[in-house]
Amino acid sequence: MFYETNTRSIVKALSWRVLATLVTTSLVWAFTHQLALAASVGGIEVVAKMILFYLHERAWDRTRIGRRQVKPAVVWFTGLSGAGKTTLARKVQEELTNRGFRSESLDGDVIRNVFPTTGFTRAERHAHVCRVGYLASRLESHGVSSIAALISPYAESRTFVRGLCKNFLEIHLSTPLAECERRDVKGLYAKARSGAIKGFTGIDDPYEPPTSPELTIDTSKTNVDDAARQIVDLVVSRS
Amino acid sequence: MFYETNTRSIVKALSWRVLATLVTTSLVWAFTHQLALAASVGGIEVVAKMILFYLHERAWDRTRIGRRQVKPAVVWFTGLSGAGKTTLARKVQEELTNRGFRSESLDGDVIRNVFPTTGFTRAERHAHVCRVGYLASRLESHGVSSIAALISPYAESRTFVRGLCKNFLEIHLSTPLAECERRDVKGLYAKARSGAIKGFTGIDDPYEPPTSPELTIDTSKTNVDDAARQIVDLVVSRS
Repeated sequence: MFYETNTRSIVKALSWRVLATLVTTSLVWAFTHQLALAASVGGIEVVAKMILFYLHERAWDRTRIGRRQVKPAVVWFTGLSGAGKTTLARKVQEELTNRGFRSESLDGDVIRNVFPTTGFTRAERHAHVCRVGYLASRLESHGVSSIAALISPYAESRTFVRGLCKNFLEIHLSTPLAECERRDVKGLYAKARSGAIKGFTGIDDPYEPPTSPELTIDTSKTNVDDAARQIVDLVVSRS
Repeated sequence: MFYETNTRSIVKALSWRVLATLVTTSLVWAFTHQLALAASVGGIEVVAKMILFYLHERAWDRTRIGRRQVKPAVVWFTGLSGAGKTTLARKVQEELTNRGFRSESLDGDVIRNVFPTTGFTRAERHAHVCRVGYLASRLESHGVSSIAALISPYAESRTFVRGLCKNFLEIHLSTPLAECERRDVKGLYAKARSGAIKGFTGIDDPYEPPTSPELTIDTSKTNVDDAARQIVDLVVSRS
């Protein structure tokens, strides 16, 4: 909840007074050509209206008329490891911040660093996605948008999160497995293929693609800037 | 992020103009006793200053001077089942809302209903407290206070949460076990004594009392209103 301090009202009263008294004095002078009269009216006006303006500001600070908050969104990326979720999430958050959205980045890897004991079984991954979704929904209810970048492989988990949120935008990064594996930024596909990692999405754990996402983007065909623009346009159109 | 709409600026300009032009016209009339002159100055002033006031408002909407946000707090209740956490949390949140705080209630039982698979082993309870603490810290970073009511039996978990938050206020409800068991609002102590529930805090699972909480209240000695007042005073003094 924002409110305006006394100081703001006082400084505003001053800045307004300079403007307004110049106008009044000029007007009186223009009509009467009497400088003394213009100065007298101006002088009393300065004092009387400064006090009045201050009180007027304080009264308006108590009302909500015409105070608007940007409608928050839960931008939920889903897709294979290496599909471009983190890169795009960062870009989208930057752009939304520029447009006056308050937002929080919910990156799966970052949150797993805070909670290192979260596992990778189906039950644990499901619970993890649901909990991050709950966090996003609580932030949303307080006017804060979330940009979530988690593989979120299971339809069940994403449906649960959609149910918690009001303005849930599912962004499916449909970049093909072959391309993600070619990129292999974190070297995880190599480990999964060699068996050093078990239960890796796309290799030996399923990825259940969304059936009706708000947006589908294949980052092997669309570049980062164009993709970010599409997502930001969607968020803005729903805000 | 709040911003002010054009409508707000226009309505404010109108409400101000009624006040201000009355003063100007009266002043000119008082000095000259010429009604026609007073009306002319007033007439031109109405138009010229309404436009000026509107532009002045729009310019001020772009500046942050004197716009203040209440500093949020993480009010973290800890204590045995039946110590009065939920009752007090509700009361405190109500009062903080009245004072202009945006807040979120984080009740252990409510959150466990959303995630019914969260268990009661030491590891699971620790993880649960930590995750709720993470949620509180993210809300705090966006200006939203949390009122958390979880048994939070382990010092380790509370220390972790304290580390995540900026303005962490640990409220230890030190109501003695005997009194909590006498109340037994949910009938859980009876079940724990009979062995129907295992790992119940205070019976067969430890409660590690805080060593330096921000506040300690024994609800068998302090009534709800007094306790709530103490907590709200603490939050306000730290905001």
